[in-house]
Amino acid sequence: MPPVPVFTAEDVHAAVDPADAVTAVHDAFVEHALGNWVMPSKVYLSAQNGDFRAMPAGGGGFAVLKWVNSYPANPARALPTVSGVVLLSEAETGQLQAILDAGAVTAIRTGAAAVLAAETLARPTVAPAAVIGCGVNGQAVARTFLARDREVLLWDARPNQARIVAEELGEGASVADDQADALASDIVVTVTPGREVLFHDGTLHAGQHVSLMGADGPGKSEIAVDELVRARVVCDEWAQASHNGDVAHAVEAGRLRREQAAELGRVLIGEEAGRSDEHEITVFDSTGLAVQDLAVAIAVFERWHDDPSSLPGVAAVELG
Amino acid sequence: MPPVPVFTAEDVHAAVDPADAVTAVHDAFVEHALGNWVMPSKVYLSAQNGDFRAMPAGGGGFAVLKWVNSYPANPARALPTVSGVVLLSEAETGQLQAILDAGAVTAIRTGAAAVLAAETLARPTVAPAAVIGCGVNGQAVARTFLARDREVLLWDARPNQARIVAEELGEGASVADDQADALASDIVVTVTPGREVLFHDGTLHAGQHVSLMGADGPGKSEIAVDELVRARVVCDEWAQASHNGDVAHAVEAGRLRREQAAELGRVLIGEEAGRSDEHEITVFDSTGLAVQDLAVAIAVFERWHDDPSSLPGVAAVELG
Repeated sequence: MPPVPVFTAEDVHAAVDPADAVTAVHDAFVEHALGNWVMPSKVYLSAQNGDFRAMPAGGGGFAVLKWVNSYPANPARALPTVSGVVLLSEAETGQLQAILDAGAVTAIRTGAAAVLAAETLARPTVAPAAVIGCGVNGQAVARTFLARDREVLLWDARPNQARIVAEELGEGASVADDQADALASDIVVTVTPGREVLFHDGTLHAGQHVSLMGADGPGKSEIAVDELVRARVVCDEWAQASHNGDVAHAVEAGRLRREQAAELGRVLIGEEAGRSDEHEITVFDSTGLAVQDLAVAIAVFERWHDDPSSLPGVAAVELG
Repeated sequence: MPPVPVFTAEDVHAAVDPADAVTAVHDAFVEHALGNWVMPSKVYLSAQNGDFRAMPAGGGGFAVLKWVNSYPANPARALPTVSGVVLLSEAETGQLQAILDAGAVTAIRTGAAAVLAAETLARPTVAPAAVIGCGVNGQAVARTFLARDREVLLWDARPNQARIVAEELGEGASVADDQADALASDIVVTVTPGREVLFHDGTLHAGQHVSLMGADGPGKSEIAVDELVRARVVCDEWAQASHNGDVAHAVEAGRLRREQAAELGRVLIGEEAGRSDEHEITVFDSTGLAVQDLAVAIAVFERWHDDPSSLPGVAAVELG
């Protein structure tokens, strides 16, 4: 077996421009909606302080497996909440092609999906997008909006966190005066742990779009059920979203059925409706799909494969 | 994140003595039967010429994921039928501890399970064990018997293959005169692709033990259903074995029910019966469990962790 390249978080970020990631993730949603890319259900493994997920997907001549965990108490030990590995194999012979840092792939594909949903579902507007929650994935969302030429308004419950991130991001990024101000933006992306509901009854205004990217654990939510069902609800995949996150709460409460919601990929191929008019409120609920990880992993690998000198830091390991 | 050690096939074999692997795999079967080690169902991902399996398990302070494939036509391209990666993470904080070659881990744990089942279920005897099929996993079975002080009698359908392997294994390994001779041994382990039934009606003799390690694909079998149900059947896990391999064929034919079979781990803890008397025929049907991979991965990692100088060739990669 030839040596396998290993992409650190830094390598992954260096390989893929966030604007290109939006295109790659767009194509992944389309291929999945068309049935060309496949994605078996993820498997969960519980551990004492967190859980692991094995997320497989296949398409574009590759197979991918993301082995990623969620350890909410890790930051107190100066360890990341989310960590793991993405394994990319070539589909024709099964040979491993790349090992990638899962945290970086997850951040890039999460940012790409949030922005793709906003660009697909929001009213046409050049207004800044508000990003609520400036952790690793929130930063990726902000970076992606900026790469797509949209300014961002940042908010984080931790004092100073939004300011630090805004300074890092530079031009186009500013800090919201308060949370209510950020939540009133025409485009809002929430990337919080979901311990606190952000959108209570009646807080969303006509024409607003929200991408809900956080709150993917049991008992967590970023929006009240009554508020969610006032909106046109688009999820990433019904099978996953109806078991996890904000859509799941509405389903459990008997307030949302499959035919009342849409899937982003099916909206992109014109099989389901997105926004119907400029007054409608649209909400995208993300649970995170392995096909998104596949798209970003392929983009990283192909960038390196086509021009290894563009990523001089990439190491390789012998396995066979 | 500190650098993560990467264990090649050679490193894995150097780290674990096959006799110790039997002990490790024994303990894995026991811990799983006691409910201390957990193992969600494996997930399959189909590709054009083969398939991938994601196999998670947790226990002993670790979580493991094996991402392994089966590409039957690969040897014609000088590529391995089975390849992939084992990822070992520490359960308390989820941090990745090791990346291991999956082919080597699979061979060692398959050899260990075949021998463990034979030692648990066969009549007490010092007779040699016959090993039918001398590919990578068959060689591992033979090596494990030798490490446990039992001679082996080798057979392979390919001319010369058994002789080449016997020469490599050295003292204690010999080649059977013909297949029938090998199949008549008191202890037989079959490690074939399962394209041909080895045990037809009436071929097993009183008191014989067979470990069926091959034939894990649809339409493949190493034993006729009528012959299997004459024996005391012990599988590795009923949930997996009743959907895949020789036990599955008997279940589909309505000839074998759960209560008529046993699981190896439950035999080891005394909750289900193994062999009842010296006349009984015993058959172990293996489908391969992620807890076995976990046991071997922990053994490799701990050997390196306790004494890195014992494995000087192990490389390490940065991921975080």
